[in-house]
Amino acid sequence: MDYQHIIEDVYQEVKSKNPRGKVADYIPELANVDAEKFGIALVDLDGTVYGVGDYEQPFSIQSISKVHTLSMVAHVFQRKLWSRVNVEPSGNPFNSIAQLEFEKGIPRNPFINAGALVITDALTTKFDDPLEEVSRFIHEVSGKECVTINQDVMRSELRHSERNTALAYFLKAFQNFDNPVEEVIQTYVAHCSMEMCCVDLARSFSFLANDGYSIYANREIVTENVARRINALMLTCGFYDESGEFAFRVGLPGKSGVGGGVASVMPHKFSIAVWSPELNEKGNSVKAIMALELLTDKLKFSLF
Amino acid sequence: MDYQHIIEDVYQEVKSKNPRGKVADYIPELANVDAEKFGIALVDLDGTVYGVGDYEQPFSIQSISKVHTLSMVAHVFQRKLWSRVNVEPSGNPFNSIAQLEFEKGIPRNPFINAGALVITDALTTKFDDPLEEVSRFIHEVSGKECVTINQDVMRSELRHSERNTALAYFLKAFQNFDNPVEEVIQTYVAHCSMEMCCVDLARSFSFLANDGYSIYANREIVTENVARRINALMLTCGFYDESGEFAFRVGLPGKSGVGGGVASVMPHKFSIAVWSPELNEKGNSVKAIMALELLTDKLKFSLF
Amino acid sequence: MDYQHIIEDVYQEVKSKNPRGKVADYIPELANVDAEKFGIALVDLDGTVYGVGDYEQPFSIQSISKVHTLSMVAHVFQRKLWSRVNVEPSGNPFNSIAQLEFEKGIPRNPFINAGALVITDALTTKFDDPLEEVSRFIHEVSGKECVTINQDVMRSELRHSERNTALAYFLKAFQNFDNPVEEVIQTYVAHCSMEMCCVDLARSFSFLANDGYSIYANREIVTENVARRINALMLTCGFYDESGEFAFRVGLPGKSGVGGGVASVMPHKFSIAVWSPELNEKGNSVKAIMALELLTDKLKFSLF
Amino acid sequence: MDYQHIIEDVYQEVKSKNPRGKVADYIPELANVDAEKFGIALVDLDGTVYGVGDYEQPFSIQSISKVHTLSMVAHVFQRKLWSRVNVEPSGNPFNSIAQLEFEKGIPRNPFINAGALVITDALTTKFDDPLEEVSRFIHEVSGKECVTINQDVMRSELRHSERNTALAYFLKAFQNFDNPVEEVIQTYVAHCSMEMCCVDLARSFSFLANDGYSIYANREIVTENVARRINALMLTCGFYDESGEFAFRVGLPGKSGVGGGVASVMPHKFSIAVWSPELNEKGNSVKAIMALELLTDKLKFSLF
Repeated sequence: MDYQHIIEDVYQEVKSKNPRGKVADYIPELANVDAEKFGIALVDLDGTVYGVGDYEQPFSIQSISKVHTLSMVAHVFQRKLWSRVNVEPSGNPFNSIAQLEFEKGIPRNPFINAGALVITDALTTKFDDPLEEVSRFIHEVSGKECVTINQDVMRSELRHSERNTALAYFLKAFQNFDNPVEEVIQTYVAHCSMEMCCVDLARSFSFLANDGYSIYANREIVTENVARRINALMLTCGFYDESGEFAFRVGLPGKSGVGGGVASVMPHKFSIAVWSPELNEKGNSVKAIMALELLTDKLKFSLF
Repeated sequence: MDYQHIIEDVYQEVKSKNPRGKVADYIPELANVDAEKFGIALVDLDGTVYGVGDYEQPFSIQSISKVHTLSMVAHVFQRKLWSRVNVEPSGNPFNSIAQLEFEKGIPRNPFINAGALVITDALTTKFDDPLEEVSRFIHEVSGKECVTINQDVMRSELRHSERNTALAYFLKAFQNFDNPVEEVIQTYVAHCSMEMCCVDLARSFSFLANDGYSIYANREIVTENVARRINALMLTCGFYDESGEFAFRVGLPGKSGVGGGVASVMPHKFSIAVWSPELNEKGNSVKAIMALELLTDKLKFSLF
Repeated sequence: MDYQHIIEDVYQEVKSKNPRGKVADYIPELANVDAEKFGIALVDLDGTVYGVGDYEQPFSIQSISKVHTLSMVAHVFQRKLWSRVNVEPSGNPFNSIAQLEFEKGIPRNPFINAGALVITDALTTKFDDPLEEVSRFIHEVSGKECVTINQDVMRSELRHSERNTALAYFLKAFQNFDNPVEEVIQTYVAHCSMEMCCVDLARSFSFLANDGYSIYANREIVTENVARRINALMLTCGFYDESGEFAFRVGLPGKSGVGGGVASVMPHKFSIAVWSPELNEKGNSVKAIMALELLTDKLKFSLF
Repeated sequence: MDYQHIIEDVYQEVKSKNPRGKVADYIPELANVDAEKFGIALVDLDGTVYGVGDYEQPFSIQSISKVHTLSMVAHVFQRKLWSRVNVEPSGNPFNSIAQLEFEKGIPRNPFINAGALVITDALTTKFDDPLEEVSRFIHEVSGKECVTINQDVMRSELRHSERNTALAYFLKAFQNFDNPVEEVIQTYVAHCSMEMCCVDLARSFSFLANDGYSIYANREIVTENVARRINALMLTCGFYDESGEFAFRVGLPGKSGVGGGVASVMPHKFSIAVWSPELNEKGNSVKAIMALELLTDKLKFSLF
């Protein structure tokens, strides 16, 4: 496969169609990002990197980090974890608290905010310094010291964390939250404020395209069974209330973030990261989604 | 792959674990089915059939027929159809009318009842005798005259169709229903009352495992692109509010019916049908789901 | 009390403030009503009539008729009726079907559409010609042959009855509907298409201001206990999702209709009807509500 | 009116029917209250006290205190307050957060928890020591130093305040909460932990039966207009999702608390407090509601 040629074609085609959205503006640090940024990096199972555009420039990965944190606990907690978080698509916005009430404190899946807070709570129980462990984990699976936490983003996000704090207290009311709310929120906001470039992000997803084995860490990060399940979760729940649409149009497991990034995998072939800051009304990057749809059209394959 | 050996192993293992559920009992014709029935049929892309248990005995396919009806219109209507039905998992029971109200008359996907009614409405617009066409379609894609409509089931279902009639009138109130309600309900109930055995059902799904091309009809039934999308829809929406769980545990596109059947595909490998009447509380066959989970465990592959 | 003087003051004040809304336009017959019409009729317990403006011109009473139909069955069915309809405010639009699903087929109250359909269904069970009985009832309690059914309105409403038909089938699915849907819808639409003027409407509510005793019929229409309860229902549920606001601002039991009418009672003092076609976004007459608020301000009393 | 005789009759009749419920058990301090306690105190507009049973024993007034706090700010804030809290019945449990999400951070009314938190937040803005002011207010309107805060109840409630804390943060996310969450929750929990006996509670509601004028304070506490509106709010929203039922069966404005108390008024006649700890499933005192229903039956009058 001439991946370099294909992603360059995709890049040009998206550029020429130039679909527009709206940069996330709830904090100034995200609002001020250059809306024209656009990069793609694809990493195959040998570790060969293919890149185009702004693929080496770090950006705020935001919710994409929820795949990393889930991977850190999924294989350890097993059954116990899945009694605390469900694995169903939500059919609701990512930060809905109504659904959490109907479902009596069990978040629909680990990628909506409530579910991700439970994961970060589990991390907090497991590790003395959970944030340090998240960085360490990403460094290991991407084979590089590649993560930095943007302190300005983190401070801004903390000032806008009332809704997540409400979700955490609500989880606590249902006995589904073990640690002090403020501590977990701090860690959650910090790992959402991590910055990486497309190459490193794609590398950090490589083990999920490879049945759980990382060529960078030279070890099984999660079992083949767990890797498949995390991929299934990304497919059904990775794009909030647009997950069905992404599965329908693109057909790959993936996870988006409001920073405009999308990380995705084609099992047994490659992992890929795309970044472009303008979002559609569901909160997903307009250009990244178009790029991935064009990619699977050109490749003539997807999961399906 | 020694599929025969594998499905026999799966069959024995499910038999010995013997998980139990509850046979659908809202109509006597389903309630009286022998709860012990259990069959598996797998068909590979060459058309070779592998079978075990009651795999040659016809059963009521019920909602599985919604995949057939969708396939009949998906490639024709294209954009127009997808403005009438969404492609998102519902996060709600299959016959919820509340969600239809929140979403202003656009069903979440073509597999919940409201969405399937829109598809049958589209069929009714397209064909003079839509029911005859559904039979003809299934005969073509399975390569056999294999479908019969169980008149007792149909009459019973008609007597219990108030909720679906309510959904249809509600769609009409939102101008998303073109034909007379009673006529469409009649066709809908009839195609849900079709009976087929596992072999024929698996054969009828074969084109979805084969990029849209049917080896029985010797023609492209839907384009490769549409085939992928129907598979994506089955993965995200095929098991009502348990779709995420099925994707998580099994990892294959599939569709269940309250008759206890599940039809599923592994793209580029095979299609499969499993039948066992006892259902879990979400309305999906307990043994069929366990069988398919064991299958992908043994095969060591799934979509992911 | 110089009621004539007071309602003339109210009339002038509303006229000069001239608050505006939007005439109901879902059927042409309502859309074409003169938006400037405005009338008030107050009837005290002796039967003395006080009137101002267009108080002698018939208009479409629409949902106000639900108070009449409820009064016809409330004292007969007693406990049985209240197992089929609840007495709680809905917190939702008048034609919501979602709530009916959550509450498993028991409408929140007899004034939302689903609840009123149950009442009309009960009337249909009780009487051979339920519509004739409704007219007869209103004639008796108002002491006059005053009701006509506007055939054009009725035919138009029937053509827009898909949503009510859906509600009725949904009730049937929950075994909370005994008669054929089409027959009940026909009666329901007909009694909502009745026309009366303010005087006659106020007279027809007189027994509710008088502990259930009608000075026109010279008999107890409902017991004092039932009369109080119907009044309580009007207070908590008479204005759809604006009932709290009406209780808060006006403080009288009342019922509105999309024809722009409001009928209301001050127990042990008077009944009153106000008509002005322009509605607010909750579907209640803007001028009628203002008039009644000014009235209780000037009277210096309300229920509270 | 021989009120003493009537309430004794009511008391005996309730005793003999002895309807049972369940004492609130989410904190030990409430769970350990003697379930057999039962008292009634009625105070007429002259200040004459009529009492029976345990009417002089203090109990935890809980949510009844929300009427006091609302009265303290309703006349001051006026329009501004009613832009922050609505006046509609909720149709949902008292501590629902789902509804708050649908209504974008504007609580349905000041008596559900979210609304009461907004009121306490307003008090916190207005007063340096809001809790001290609540006590002072109740002392003034009841004419006695009658309120104590049960420190054990308060500490227990604070340990169970996650859900209210979630509501407060959620309000903050919608910019409908001005002060630090912990500070407001502290005050809220404290005023819900106040103890009073039936006599003092009835006296403290006296001004609401008297067009806003307190015979104890010898001054207008709220205007006649505001008094009427608080009464209207109690009628439509005072008993959570059983408000319609209470209006229907009793027909008086009132407010309940999970301590088993109910305070109610008959405008221009009397105020009344009833206490019995066992609650129905909606959280309202079983015996208190029956007592008030019998009372209005015997009096042959209510609001309606």
